[in-house]
Amino acid sequence: LHRIALDVMGGDNAPAETVAGAVLAVQSGVDVLLVGDSSQIGEELERAGADLPVVHAPDTIEMGEDVGRALREKPASSVATCARLTRDGEVAGFVSAGSTGAAMAAAALIVGRIPGVLRPTIATIFPTIGTPTVVVDSGANPEVKPEHLVQFAAMGAVFSEVVLGVDRPRVALLNIGEEPGKGRQLEKDTFLRLQASHLRFVGNVEGRALSRDEADVIVTDGFTGNVFLKTVEGAAALLSILFLEALSTISPEASAELVPRLEPIRHRMDYENTGGAHLLGVEGVVVIAHGSSTRRSVSNALRLAADGAERGLPGRVAARIAAP
Amino acid sequence: LHRIALDVMGGDNAPAETVAGAVLAVQSGVDVLLVGDSSQIGEELERAGADLPVVHAPDTIEMGEDVGRALREKPASSVATCARLTRDGEVAGFVSAGSTGAAMAAAALIVGRIPGVLRPTIATIFPTIGTPTVVVDSGANPEVKPEHLVQFAAMGAVFSEVVLGVDRPRVALLNIGEEPGKGRQLEKDTFLRLQASHLRFVGNVEGRALSRDEADVIVTDGFTGNVFLKTVEGAAALLSILFLEALSTISPEASAELVPRLEPIRHRMDYENTGGAHLLGVEGVVVIAHGSSTRRSVSNALRLAADGAERGLPGRVAARIAAP
Repeated sequence: LHRIALDVMGGDNAPAETVAGAVLAVQSGVDVLLVGDSSQIGEELERAGADLPVVHAPDTIEMGEDVGRALREKPASSVATCARLTRDGEVAGFVSAGSTGAAMAAAALIVGRIPGVLRPTIATIFPTIGTPTVVVDSGANPEVKPEHLVQFAAMGAVFSEVVLGVDRPRVALLNIGEEPGKGRQLEKDTFLRLQASHLRFVGNVEGRALSRDEADVIVTDGFTGNVFLKTVEGAAALLSILFLEALSTISPEASAELVPRLEPIRHRMDYENTGGAHLLGVEGVVVIAHGSSTRRSVSNALRLAADGAERGLPGRVAARIAAP
Repeated sequence: LHRIALDVMGGDNAPAETVAGAVLAVQSGVDVLLVGDSSQIGEELERAGADLPVVHAPDTIEMGEDVGRALREKPASSVATCARLTRDGEVAGFVSAGSTGAAMAAAALIVGRIPGVLRPTIATIFPTIGTPTVVVDSGANPEVKPEHLVQFAAMGAVFSEVVLGVDRPRVALLNIGEEPGKGRQLEKDTFLRLQASHLRFVGNVEGRALSRDEADVIVTDGFTGNVFLKTVEGAAALLSILFLEALSTISPEASAELVPRLEPIRHRMDYENTGGAHLLGVEGVVVIAHGSSTRRSVSNALRLAADGAERGLPGRVAARIAAP
C-alpha cells in the first residue's frame, strides 16, 4: 500500500491548487486520496475533469490556533483525518501544506512516534555543488539536547540512504568553526557523542558547506536549521533579483542565448521541485509542504511522500532506532 | 586623532598582503601605523616603495593557542601591542586579520569595555535589496541572555546611524517565524524587552530578510549570526559557481555583453568590499578582518575602521549605553 492522503484544505492556495496538484501527481503515477470538504473538492475535480477518491473532512485548523486543543475539538479537521487514515493503515502517509504545527502535532499524537524516538525531526533536502544534502532538524525542535541531535543525525542518515541513495552518508555537525571544541556547549557535547557513534561522522561544517561537497547529512537544532533554510532561500532570491536586473539591460540576442542556460540553475535552486520536507520518527510517511504551495509543488510533495512510502522509510528508521 | 594601527602579522597572507593593503589604504587617505616584526615589514615596504610608520612587535599569537595565556605570556605580540596603543591613545583603534579570539580578547582585556556594556559584539554589514543591513552579533557571543541581545540591538542601531547614515534604524529580531511568540525562550523574552525599549523595534524577521527591505539592524545570538553570515556566503558562492558554468557555454559575443553587467553584482555581494566587521562596546575602534584577507580587503578594513574613528563610533556607543 503506497497510497498518500492529501490534506486538501491546507495551504494558502487551497483547495484549487491542492486538488490540481493531486491531479498532476496521479498522472505521474502517485496513488492519492483527497481529504477535505467533499463539495469543494467535487467542484475542483469537475473543473479538472478528473475523478479521484475523496474522504469528507469539513473542518480546518487555522494558523495561530492552539494546535492540541484544535485537534481534540475538531476531530473532523482535514489534517487530523489524514493522520487517522495513516494510523489505521488506510494510507501509507499524508501531505499537508497547512499549519506546520498542526501537521507535526497530528503526526505525533495520532500517527504516533516510532518506539525509541525521543522527538520527530524535519529533514530538508538542499541543493549543493555535489549530491543534495539533508539538513536535520529544519524546524521541528527549536530547543534540543545532545541526545536529540544524535538521533536526528541517525534518522537523517537513514533518509539519505533510503531516499537519496547515498552509500554510507557523511554526517557533519553545523557549527561556527571547523575545529573540534567550537560552538556552544550543545555542539561541544554533541561532537563527542557523534564521534563515539556508529555514524560516519566527518566533524564540524560551517554555513558555507553548500558551496562545497563536505557532507551528506548536516545536523543542527531546529532553530538554527530553520534560519539556515530560510537564509539560503533569501540569498538565492536576492541574487536572482540582481541577475534579472542585469539581464534586463542586455540585447534580445544575448538574452535569448542566456535564458535557456539559466533554467537548469533556477530548477536546481527551486524549492518547488522538492515540494516539502519529510517528518522523520513517526509511524508513517508525513511530508510538510510550503504554505504557499502551487500545484507543481503539491504534486512534487506527493511524489516525495510516495518515494518514502515505496522505499519503506518509516520501517527503515524504526530498524535503525532499534539497532543503531 | 584618526590613526589606525594594523596588526601586520595577522592573517593567512601576512605580512605581504597586510603591508600591501596598508599602502593602498594610505593612498586613499587613511592614516595607518604598522605593528609587527619591523625587519619583515621593512622588506615589504621596500618592495612596495613606500614609507609608513612602524612599531616593532615581533611575537604572534597562533590560531588555536589559549588566548588569555598567550596575551599574558607574549606582551610583545602584534595584536596585544595594537590594543595597548589603542588604550594609550596613540591610535584611534586597530585592524586585525589574525585569530578572531585573540583580537576580541585583546580588545576586551587591554582596550577595555565601555562602562555598562555587558559584552562586546561583532556587527557585520550585509548587502540587501535595499540599504545594507547590520547583523549583531555575528560571532562574538555564541551563548547569550535576553539582556545581551537588547544591548547588541542598541549598539547595532548606533552603528547603523553613525556608519551607514540611517535615520531611526528599524531593529528586528532574527527568528523562525514572523508572528510574536515564535522561537526559543530566548527570542520570546527578547521580543518583549525590545518592544518595551526605546528602539524602533519592527518585530521578527526570518532568514530570507536579505531579499526584502525589512530591517536596518537584525539582532541575534553569535552562534545563529555566524551561521547566517557563512550561509549567505555559501549560497552566494554556490550560485556564482552555477552561473559561471552556465556562462561558459554561451557565445563570446553574448558573454562580452553580459560580463560587464555582472560586475556590479559581484561587487555588491563580495565581502572583500567591506573587509571586516566592527567589534562594538570597547573603548576604541576595533575591526576584525577575514583571516584570508587580500590587500584589497585589508585596505577596505582600514577604511572601515577609519570611518568609525572619524565619526566617533566608540563615543556614540558609550553615550547610548549611558542613556539608552
